[in-house]
Amino acid sequence: MIMQVYTLDNEEIKREFIETRRLTLELFKQLSIEDAVMQSDSFGSPPNWHLAHTNWFYHKILDDIVGFKPNIRGIRYLNSYYQRFGYILPKPLRGRYPRPLVKDTLRYRRLVDKEILALLEKPLDEDTKYKIMLANQHEMQHQELMIYDLQHYFNQFIDADDNYKPKVIKDIKPKEKVEGMVEIEGGLYNLGFNGKGFCYDNELPEHKVYLQPYRIDKRLVTNGEFIKFIEDGGYEDPSLWLDDGWHFIKENNIKAPLYWQNIDGKWMKKDFRGFREIDKDEPVVNVSYYEADAYARWIGKRLPTEAEWEKAASWDEEEGVKRLYPWGDQFRDNANLLESFIWKPSKAGSYPKGKSYYGCYQMIGDVWEWTSSEYRLYPGFKSLFEEYNDKWAINQKVLRG
Amino acid sequence: MIMQVYTLDNEEIKREFIETRRLTLELFKQLSIEDAVMQSDSFGSPPNWHLAHTNWFYHKILDDIVGFKPNIRGIRYLNSYYQRFGYILPKPLRGRYPRPLVKDTLRYRRLVDKEILALLEKPLDEDTKYKIMLANQHEMQHQELMIYDLQHYFNQFIDADDNYKPKVIKDIKPKEKVEGMVEIEGGLYNLGFNGKGFCYDNELPEHKVYLQPYRIDKRLVTNGEFIKFIEDGGYEDPSLWLDDGWHFIKENNIKAPLYWQNIDGKWMKKDFRGFREIDKDEPVVNVSYYEADAYARWIGKRLPTEAEWEKAASWDEEEGVKRLYPWGDQFRDNANLLESFIWKPSKAGSYPKGKSYYGCYQMIGDVWEWTSSEYRLYPGFKSLFEEYNDKWAINQKVLRG
Amino acid sequence: MIMQVYTLDNEEIKREFIETRRLTLELFKQLSIEDAVMQSDSFGSPPNWHLAHTNWFYHKILDDIVGFKPNIRGIRYLNSYYQRFGYILPKPLRGRYPRPLVKDTLRYRRLVDKEILALLEKPLDEDTKYKIMLANQHEMQHQELMIYDLQHYFNQFIDADDNYKPKVIKDIKPKEKVEGMVEIEGGLYNLGFNGKGFCYDNELPEHKVYLQPYRIDKRLVTNGEFIKFIEDGGYEDPSLWLDDGWHFIKENNIKAPLYWQNIDGKWMKKDFRGFREIDKDEPVVNVSYYEADAYARWIGKRLPTEAEWEKAASWDEEEGVKRLYPWGDQFRDNANLLESFIWKPSKAGSYPKGKSYYGCYQMIGDVWEWTSSEYRLYPGFKSLFEEYNDKWAINQKVLRG
Amino acid sequence: MIMQVYTLDNEEIKREFIETRRLTLELFKQLSIEDAVMQSDSFGSPPNWHLAHTNWFYHKILDDIVGFKPNIRGIRYLNSYYQRFGYILPKPLRGRYPRPLVKDTLRYRRLVDKEILALLEKPLDEDTKYKIMLANQHEMQHQELMIYDLQHYFNQFIDADDNYKPKVIKDIKPKEKVEGMVEIEGGLYNLGFNGKGFCYDNELPEHKVYLQPYRIDKRLVTNGEFIKFIEDGGYEDPSLWLDDGWHFIKENNIKAPLYWQNIDGKWMKKDFRGFREIDKDEPVVNVSYYEADAYARWIGKRLPTEAEWEKAASWDEEEGVKRLYPWGDQFRDNANLLESFIWKPSKAGSYPKGKSYYGCYQMIGDVWEWTSSEYRLYPGFKSLFEEYNDKWAINQKVLRG
Repeated sequence: MIMQVYTLDNEEIKREFIETRRLTLELFKQLSIEDAVMQSDSFGSPPNWHLAHTNWFYHKILDDIVGFKPNIRGIRYLNSYYQRFGYILPKPLRGRYPRPLVKDTLRYRRLVDKEILALLEKPLDEDTKYKIMLANQHEMQHQELMIYDLQHYFNQFIDADDNYKPKVIKDIKPKEKVEGMVEIEGGLYNLGFNGKGFCYDNELPEHKVYLQPYRIDKRLVTNGEFIKFIEDGGYEDPSLWLDDGWHFIKENNIKAPLYWQNIDGKWMKKDFRGFREIDKDEPVVNVSYYEADAYARWIGKRLPTEAEWEKAASWDEEEGVKRLYPWGDQFRDNANLLESFIWKPSKAGSYPKGKSYYGCYQMIGDVWEWTSSEYRLYPGFKSLFEEYNDKWAINQKVLRG
Repeated sequence: MIMQVYTLDNEEIKREFIETRRLTLELFKQLSIEDAVMQSDSFGSPPNWHLAHTNWFYHKILDDIVGFKPNIRGIRYLNSYYQRFGYILPKPLRGRYPRPLVKDTLRYRRLVDKEILALLEKPLDEDTKYKIMLANQHEMQHQELMIYDLQHYFNQFIDADDNYKPKVIKDIKPKEKVEGMVEIEGGLYNLGFNGKGFCYDNELPEHKVYLQPYRIDKRLVTNGEFIKFIEDGGYEDPSLWLDDGWHFIKENNIKAPLYWQNIDGKWMKKDFRGFREIDKDEPVVNVSYYEADAYARWIGKRLPTEAEWEKAASWDEEEGVKRLYPWGDQFRDNANLLESFIWKPSKAGSYPKGKSYYGCYQMIGDVWEWTSSEYRLYPGFKSLFEEYNDKWAINQKVLRG
Repeated sequence: MIMQVYTLDNEEIKREFIETRRLTLELFKQLSIEDAVMQSDSFGSPPNWHLAHTNWFYHKILDDIVGFKPNIRGIRYLNSYYQRFGYILPKPLRGRYPRPLVKDTLRYRRLVDKEILALLEKPLDEDTKYKIMLANQHEMQHQELMIYDLQHYFNQFIDADDNYKPKVIKDIKPKEKVEGMVEIEGGLYNLGFNGKGFCYDNELPEHKVYLQPYRIDKRLVTNGEFIKFIEDGGYEDPSLWLDDGWHFIKENNIKAPLYWQNIDGKWMKKDFRGFREIDKDEPVVNVSYYEADAYARWIGKRLPTEAEWEKAASWDEEEGVKRLYPWGDQFRDNANLLESFIWKPSKAGSYPKGKSYYGCYQMIGDVWEWTSSEYRLYPGFKSLFEEYNDKWAINQKVLRG
Repeated sequence: MIMQVYTLDNEEIKREFIETRRLTLELFKQLSIEDAVMQSDSFGSPPNWHLAHTNWFYHKILDDIVGFKPNIRGIRYLNSYYQRFGYILPKPLRGRYPRPLVKDTLRYRRLVDKEILALLEKPLDEDTKYKIMLANQHEMQHQELMIYDLQHYFNQFIDADDNYKPKVIKDIKPKEKVEGMVEIEGGLYNLGFNGKGFCYDNELPEHKVYLQPYRIDKRLVTNGEFIKFIEDGGYEDPSLWLDDGWHFIKENNIKAPLYWQNIDGKWMKKDFRGFREIDKDEPVVNVSYYEADAYARWIGKRLPTEAEWEKAASWDEEEGVKRLYPWGDQFRDNANLLESFIWKPSKAGSYPKGKSYYGCYQMIGDVWEWTSSEYRLYPGFKSLFEEYNDKWAINQKVLRG
């Protein structure tokens, strides 16, 4: 693992910790116990497992530092991938062993809360601080996975009544009309993290890549545009699809993005706002890599490479620096993050304050929030726990945002 | 459906109803909500589903008679097989929709209790009485299935602590030593129900069959005897097995009955009495048809036909009548039924009062109680609801007891 | 194995042997080598394998008697089921090892021919004679399986040109109009073989069964009648089907018998007579047990039991004997056997000379010829080679004819 | 498709065509018809299909140019991937339709030979010449695939006698001892084809990439080195494997490279030289990407990127040009190509004349010849027939050599 300087102090980490833990419970509390232990597909996990597993992550860090060994029944089912911690529960079985029981999970979290907060009262070395920040980020990631899983789970119910109904804080109205593409020069570019604050080890090190000149859309693809792709026979034309993708959609009889239903000619969808007609001005989400790729081919473009994406999203040509992700109290003006409690992607033209140097909108925020779901591949989880970092580095597309 | 005379009066049916419903809740109440909604294999069902589905069965009868239409969320997931009631939830998905929620299931049952008890206050025609008795029997059947499922479910947990721990009323000590076989004459025999009280329609009509003379064991096969079969290489000798069975045990790497583990040379098993060494004097249970058949071939015998079994179990040659199953307050002396709360099969020689005319022990009771699990095939459920009765009459072995 | 007296002498066995072997080659010779080694489904076998395996069966008998050990490459792939002969090639892999090569198979057969004919020059004990007769019957059985497999294989080709085109000797015209059912008395009946000549050991011993009085059709179900079943929605009404059968036809999207295609409203089929419209007067074939059962339910009847079938087909009430199957030079007047080279089932009313005492037509012949295909389950092969005989006695329906 | 200048004249193309076609038949002629139509795994094809399909490729080109429409039965089964030519036979079914028959395939090839040779008598435009050269390359590729398939097919036979036994022209003795790594500078590098003669469209266009400085082995990994990896527990240590790879080897119980057998402590293998002990000095072949990757991790290295490989193999730093692959009459001194008829990979240190500027041995030749087999992934086939070129550009590793 490559180390770097962290500037967050204990107090900042503590605020982040408290806020992260609070938000997880906020998302969880409206679920019945019955729903909390369900796993609706083998690629997802039960909400209760998310809660207990993220806590287990802190627990293992605490065990290394202070020998923390809480007595909770069912902890053995919480190891996701780490060979060094013994028994690994295969992912498809997470819904088969509802352990710890919900009440034990909640008690388990309270024990960890107490330990972490006690630890943060003392001076900590950089490595320890990094580990707690990593556990915070890990729990934030699982918040998103949990939301993704909840959408999948409740979609299988026929009754509209069976849904996840979060409190919505406010809606955002788009403020500008954004169209077209921007041209970006080629040449050498430094890919990777180089700022301050937290980064995953797989964002390091920064390194040179050579880019051909390219053009990139200023805004996200909308549902309305995707409907045109469907209506033009996009799902019926093999020449638009990767060969694997073509077989995948034919074998699974896929004719529209996940969750879409065509009812009497109208495209409908159940999401966290209920069962509603698909809004043509919202960005399209829940499309697989195959679908994104086919759409791009249909419109005569292609998907950007990671480096192309990163440069377009974060590089400030004038200043010669990368701009950081929005953070702090004012983030709600810049981007639609989970913490905004908006519960749907914002329309094109939203968040002009958050646009990039090149004029690209919503590359952070709506997209950061929804990447994992947008392309339906979970981003490879990266470990710091002494186990090598690249063992999922195959057959996975990079998602950024 | 073939009708016959019923002699139970409203008061008797009511007693049976109250007792049946009480026992179901007794079995259920010690479960956590998390465990109550789990389905550990596609051939089983979640306990909560058993509770709600048996109630739905009364509900549909009440709907036909008095137009009973309770407002409970999730009733649509309770139809097991009946085409005429609309949507049928495929059995493997019963663990995927935890509906009704447990609290709704309990409320649903209270509503039905009230209606049935009110109905039984009035004079009822024979057909209505039969239907309520059928629903009682249906719920009793599901009590057994539920117990079978609970054993399967808790067996998958590694920790001994995760188990179903029922209250045990008392143990039974075997009173006699029983060995050997009895010879029974051949000739014409009347197979089927001919007594008073409830019978399923598939027990009717009584009809003639011709039996060759035969011999049958006076007692059940014990674990000790089955261990000898294993130690003699029974699971490794293809000449003992049905061809299907041989492939089945090889493909599934089966080397002993379900749940058996060999730990340092000792055969162990987790059952409702905990994780304990297998008792060589108890009857062997949880063996598949294939295993029973292979065992019989190994010992130089064969499994009895249904008619052979029935004659040996119930025919009284002297009186020229079939003897009924034990019932009433004194049943605990005659047989080990679920209501005995013994929670394990009784040893050979138990229940001499319940032996048959021919001297066969425990053919009712331990066996009746454990048939479904003993041979690992669920007895085909039989409908009275106007749908034909024989649609499962294929590839199923008859279980009696 | 239960033995009985055989009356065939060496000369008769020799004639049967020569004729059987000749007919096998007659069926095989028109195939290209490429087609001869193909296995179109896992339940069938390549024609070359049938040829070599039936020869291997004689080979093993010869080995026991005279130590016959021919040197042919690829013999190891010819053992179908016999544990005592070592390596068993799993059935689905028979098309994967084209050994012996076709030219070696033919040489292998010539070596066996020579040995068997030499053996038949000497006086033989009954057991040896039985074994050769069994091998003859075994090869006749495989002729039928081979024809069944060829139909399946050539049906998968799109071009009409790719077909098995046997020489047709003559057609049979039905001579009588046959309709209705016959009533047969119940009571005790002796099921099983009791005549002279060859029988399989599973046709023995003759034993008493009790039959209820019953009615049975005088003739086979026709294609025309089955089309009415289809047009009446037979494949869409779950109440007509066994539960397994219903799932089977829905999962496999079955809407008509195997090989049937509906082209512009006409039912068409490729069989050994080419691609032609289905003849409404021919008996329906290639229907599964499920389809036969559903048809019977639709028409308000049921399938007969084996004993019911046998009594109707072979019992002569007046003489008090079972009548034997047609044989000898005049068989062509009595029944449509493979040796008739007619290559299609005969229409209702054919073969009045072959009708049974009770007036049932074509119960031998067309049906014997087509049983394996008619219900699409291979009849369980029965071994005489010291291995037990009943290991396939599960989940198989008895086919008679 | 990006076009470029071709310098081959008709006469050169003709020589290449004749030699290619001759070699294909040379490889084919020793096969029996039975073996020629077998497909031993779904990722391979029958030899007869390779022969007919490569011919079909010329046929389609000829059809576009001169309206060539030969009358051969079974052509419809030869389309591998091209939507515009109608029906595509799914790859796993290539062994199910042995069409054209072998004799028809050979006649089909003679018809095409005649047409192509006639065409080459006339002046041709560059596009037509490119197409014929492409068809030649396509057939050469299939020669390699055919050899790969033959190895797989004959390996499944138990008898040593069942093997592909090609004539071996001569053996090569290694002339030098090669060890160690070479350091190569980073910086901008032009990846892609820039020479004269044929190239696939996916080798174009040449484009800049930025390379970090790197080190690369001077020679291929040997069997002896791979055995050390095995003996060190390489297949038992999850930390060496990609997560997918770990599951893959565990699910498939893989403990050594494909075809390796450990017999009494010796590593043995059946290849085209027969069943023999594995030679520790030969390069390891038939390892999957997962195995190559795990080996590299174990030895503390990593696999090179495509650009790193290409630069090390072909860049001449002094001259500032890429060196072409060996060709012409003297190629046998430079590299072990298929045409060398050596039928096994050459030992480390062979072909010093063919080493690269940086001192890397056998990067062309042994490796070019065996890439497809070496890593067990077929190189994505690239079409020129108006269908897009990148539809397999997912989940495939680049193989070079």
